[in-house]
Amino acid sequence: MKALVYRGPGRKALEDCPKPEIKAPGDAIVKIVKTTICGTDLHILKGDVPTCTPGRILGHEGVGIVDTVGAGVTTFRPGDRVLISCISSCGKCDYCRRGMYSHCTTGGWILGNEIDGTQAEYVRTPHADTSLYRIPEGADEEALVMLSDILPTGFECGVLNGKVAPGSTVAIVGAGPIGLATLLTAQFYSPAEIIMIDLDDNRLGLARQFGATRTINSADGKAAETVKKLTDGRGVDTAIEAVGIPGTFLLCQDLVAPGGIIANIGVHGSKVDLHLERLWSQNIAITTRLVDTVTTPMLLKTVQSKKIDPTRLITHRFKLDKILDAYDTFGRAADTHALKVIIAA
Amino acid sequence: MKALVYRGPGRKALEDCPKPEIKAPGDAIVKIVKTTICGTDLHILKGDVPTCTPGRILGHEGVGIVDTVGAGVTTFRPGDRVLISCISSCGKCDYCRRGMYSHCTTGGWILGNEIDGTQAEYVRTPHADTSLYRIPEGADEEALVMLSDILPTGFECGVLNGKVAPGSTVAIVGAGPIGLATLLTAQFYSPAEIIMIDLDDNRLGLARQFGATRTINSADGKAAETVKKLTDGRGVDTAIEAVGIPGTFLLCQDLVAPGGIIANIGVHGSKVDLHLERLWSQNIAITTRLVDTVTTPMLLKTVQSKKIDPTRLITHRFKLDKILDAYDTFGRAADTHALKVIIAA
Repeated sequence: MKALVYRGPGRKALEDCPKPEIKAPGDAIVKIVKTTICGTDLHILKGDVPTCTPGRILGHEGVGIVDTVGAGVTTFRPGDRVLISCISSCGKCDYCRRGMYSHCTTGGWILGNEIDGTQAEYVRTPHADTSLYRIPEGADEEALVMLSDILPTGFECGVLNGKVAPGSTVAIVGAGPIGLATLLTAQFYSPAEIIMIDLDDNRLGLARQFGATRTINSADGKAAETVKKLTDGRGVDTAIEAVGIPGTFLLCQDLVAPGGIIANIGVHGSKVDLHLERLWSQNIAITTRLVDTVTTPMLLKTVQSKKIDPTRLITHRFKLDKILDAYDTFGRAADTHALKVIIAA
Repeated sequence: MKALVYRGPGRKALEDCPKPEIKAPGDAIVKIVKTTICGTDLHILKGDVPTCTPGRILGHEGVGIVDTVGAGVTTFRPGDRVLISCISSCGKCDYCRRGMYSHCTTGGWILGNEIDGTQAEYVRTPHADTSLYRIPEGADEEALVMLSDILPTGFECGVLNGKVAPGSTVAIVGAGPIGLATLLTAQFYSPAEIIMIDLDDNRLGLARQFGATRTINSADGKAAETVKKLTDGRGVDTAIEAVGIPGTFLLCQDLVAPGGIIANIGVHGSKVDLHLERLWSQNIAITTRLVDTVTTPMLLKTVQSKKIDPTRLITHRFKLDKILDAYDTFGRAADTHALKVIIAA
């Protein structure tokens, strides 16, 4: 089968690979229908993710059709249309039984990282019963691809951890795909203001279309000052970090009001300064989270009931044999205005 | 009247000062019966607290007898025995109405900081109705002095923010008075293990008497390793920082388990490194808090019902005219083994 293979920092190739096979009784083989590329895939390609070794098929998002199942799989049968979660979870370990699937002792984020992923014609999904979701009749498959990772990540790590609440004031730092997914799901909870902060005016324009009540281009270095003016000098109840660099995490420390929360979504590659000399007395919380995908069923219902339309995040479409073009388009987002790209297998 | 006056960094004096007078309708003048010295007073004396200017009478803890009240005070009358909260709160501003008294817009921690404090024969307490607590008949006044600041601080900033729970594993970094107050109140919630970490074997010995299940002297730099061994490699559910320096905050980052909480109590004078490059995916929370003293009535009941005995924190007693000796004893705690000192006016 065709698959996109990581060949070490800076190198990838579309290659012919053997079709995956059942290795454990809980496995399923899923024929990919649609997949996508994540910002994390670009991190891997930079060499930032040491757990992902050369030779690995990338991709941890997608929808497909069950091809074969192991002897232990009881929930799915060949022919079932399924959503593949970016998080594999056994459902049995201490972490899974607490709903912290991200830290499953035999799962977590392994697809397209420690085991072969979804940017291929077929993928082996371990712990199929507790890592796949049945796709409802008539559902939009492209919308559901957004539920593998980006929507639950924005929702769980940003909106839920940040305790977005009716009447509250929220700032989202970073208007890339994950920031925009956070913006979409933040509106479930009717905050009074959602202030979107980015350096890219095109993305800020999209943010306004997606429901941001205000947008701030932070290029002038005065974003914190502007937010303070908008909030009677207090700052925001929830500051969501959706970039993953020290400067944006610092900005969140400048934005947060006494009693507020900084909810980190960004994947960070280095330590950051935490200004405890002024924050120790500010009654704030800082949260981090690798998405657990515990809210996938909830989000599925919001898509089915048309409370949100995640297809608004999709800007480009490619066939699997053009996936190198898809990477190029996604990797040059400032020029191409790409958000999420759909790859049809 | 006699009072302990801050005279600029490194300088303090016992002086004759005018007796305070009612300035606002909500004020009370309280005749001090007993007060104490806080680690924060030593911070002021080092020049670390710029809001406290030379000429200020120090002290933000104590019990006393109401001497006079302003025209607006309805809850207390002259002769009432009262506990003075370290936090003054108007009860009316947005923060107070959310229970975040620490950030009261006309109060907060102002006693012995922005206005004259309790290390004196008399003190003026603003917002008396909502900043004083009636002392129950027969209560031990020395025990209640511990309820002005140290017990609610350990309890709210450490135990409540840290979500100490039945069966959980807790590490408290710092076995000084505030760490030991945290240790006492953590036991309300029946954690499985409370691991106390400090450099001082005397204090670790006290921690064992106070209920620590394990103690670790961190002098060898292997505290994190030891804790990981004790917890199957995972770390603790709650790591409480009760020192206020970068090294101890760093240790908490090394101790905390996936899904755990770092609850900061320490007063920090400089920024710290936050290792988001490994913590971003660990589903942790970090909390900060200036004590709100919202739990003072609850803690009063735990003292009255003998669930805890805060007099165990008291090691030395002085008269007000010997308060310079009290400062000396408290300031040389490593030698004198002082925890809290009681000063009788």
